[in-house]
Amino acid sequence: MYIHGYGERESERLLAQAASVVRLLHGDTRFPPGSRVLEVGCGTGAQTVSLARNSPGAQIVAFDHAIASLARAIERVAAAGLSNVEFLHADLFALPFEAESFDHVFVCFVLEHLTNPIAALQLVKLLLKPGGSVTVFEGDHGSAYFHPDSAIAQRAIACQVELQRRAGGNACIGRQLYPLLVQAGYDAPSVTPRVVYVDATTPDLVDSFTRKTFTWMVAAVREEALAVRIIDAATFDAGIRDLHRAAEPDGVFCYTFFKGVAAKPAHLPQEGSNGRDV
Amino acid sequence: MYIHGYGERESERLLAQAASVVRLLHGDTRFPPGSRVLEVGCGTGAQTVSLARNSPGAQIVAFDHAIASLARAIERVAAAGLSNVEFLHADLFALPFEAESFDHVFVCFVLEHLTNPIAALQLVKLLLKPGGSVTVFEGDHGSAYFHPDSAIAQRAIACQVELQRRAGGNACIGRQLYPLLVQAGYDAPSVTPRVVYVDATTPDLVDSFTRKTFTWMVAAVREEALAVRIIDAATFDAGIRDLHRAAEPDGVFCYTFFKGVAAKPAHLPQEGSNGRDV
Repeated sequence: MYIHGYGERESERLLAQAASVVRLLHGDTRFPPGSRVLEVGCGTGAQTVSLARNSPGAQIVAFDHAIASLARAIERVAAAGLSNVEFLHADLFALPFEAESFDHVFVCFVLEHLTNPIAALQLVKLLLKPGGSVTVFEGDHGSAYFHPDSAIAQRAIACQVELQRRAGGNACIGRQLYPLLVQAGYDAPSVTPRVVYVDATTPDLVDSFTRKTFTWMVAAVREEALAVRIIDAATFDAGIRDLHRAAEPDGVFCYTFFKGVAAKPAHLPQEGSNGRDV
Repeated sequence: MYIHGYGERESERLLAQAASVVRLLHGDTRFPPGSRVLEVGCGTGAQTVSLARNSPGAQIVAFDHAIASLARAIERVAAAGLSNVEFLHADLFALPFEAESFDHVFVCFVLEHLTNPIAALQLVKLLLKPGGSVTVFEGDHGSAYFHPDSAIAQRAIACQVELQRRAGGNACIGRQLYPLLVQAGYDAPSVTPRVVYVDATTPDLVDSFTRKTFTWMVAAVREEALAVRIIDAATFDAGIRDLHRAAEPDGVFCYTFFKGVAAKPAHLPQEGSNGRDV
């Protein structure tokens, strides 16, 4: 759910998101002591801290291709007093690991940026031991709705979706986790929705999620959206105002993340089967 | 989430819905032994059975203004072997009950049909003892999204929403439960989303919810939508086909219901306050 992965504003937003939604997303994600876990595309480490804290006996290897993000992740994990994470500067499609060298893989807010998420999941599968698991998290901008409803706010959100599409990504990928995991050859995917429901009874979420995560993320594409002329400034700004309107005391905001867990088949599938690696 | 409340097809749909989604919706709705509970607008009794079964010690009074629906509800509750329900043919705005004569009120899929849902909630509040609770359930058609995504399917859904709007209702009312309960003068509303997430791992839900509840409900407005010319037949039919496409093995369907619980203030509010009755 990040755009560039670094930059002061995005970092704040990610941090806000991590603080308020982290339990909903990661509260039930735990890996056993002694297991070796790969975090794909750790970004600024917003999720790495929860991952390492929830699985103190696991050895986590986290990598990202963006050096500035990685530096921030290293700082953040150190500041949290966690010592079970190794960091690596690397690219997903050129990793230095041997096949079948991880027990579990954790992929959070990464697939949405990839032109071929199935290829990424297949590559991850090569790194997993047979029977190992992949855990995937994604948001879905098509799951955003709010009160008061606003067609103009939906148009502003659609700009973010369209720009991410033009960059090769998919901001509405959350709903697709099940077919993606099946098509990548995993066994028995289990997908669960995680709804962030926000009304005035949770003022911390109104601020940290409705305003400082979702609305800021949409607002961040303003200049780019205007530059490619998919919206005019007045409409975009009115849309952002309407998103802030949903953060008023009688407003409501809903957004759904999806968690998918699936296993690498315990026995290597035969060539030509659905589970064939790339 | 019903349209007419009776008719063979709607009954089947409601029954399917009750069978597959009932635990998600009502599993945590229980009223204590000895309490007197009013069910507003019980329709064909699809929810009444769960309500009576989950609270065997409570005395339930269920009413509806549609005699055919009420007859079906009486049959259904008798067939389930439940004896803690009294039925009444009555209209919400002309009920024969004294003020403050119920401990709890249960309102499921009713507010979506009303021109003034706040007035209905205020009326219900008069019937509640101070400190009593109202429990409200509503769906929200704006929460429906699916894979593969389809703008044409969303247009077909929008016909159902538009026709319900022209009939004075609101098919997207679920997200509004919190402000509605506040505006009706209830204390401390607590609203929780209930997501029906459907993929091929739950074939019973694919059939009973995606196909036989949601898609049938949208398909049921075809003639009316064509008659008032808000869509053409080819587009509508293509939209329904795309909804069925989401029920294929690689499809996904999501829909969110909302449950709201709130208390009638224990002490009557002073005139002029937010809690003033109508």
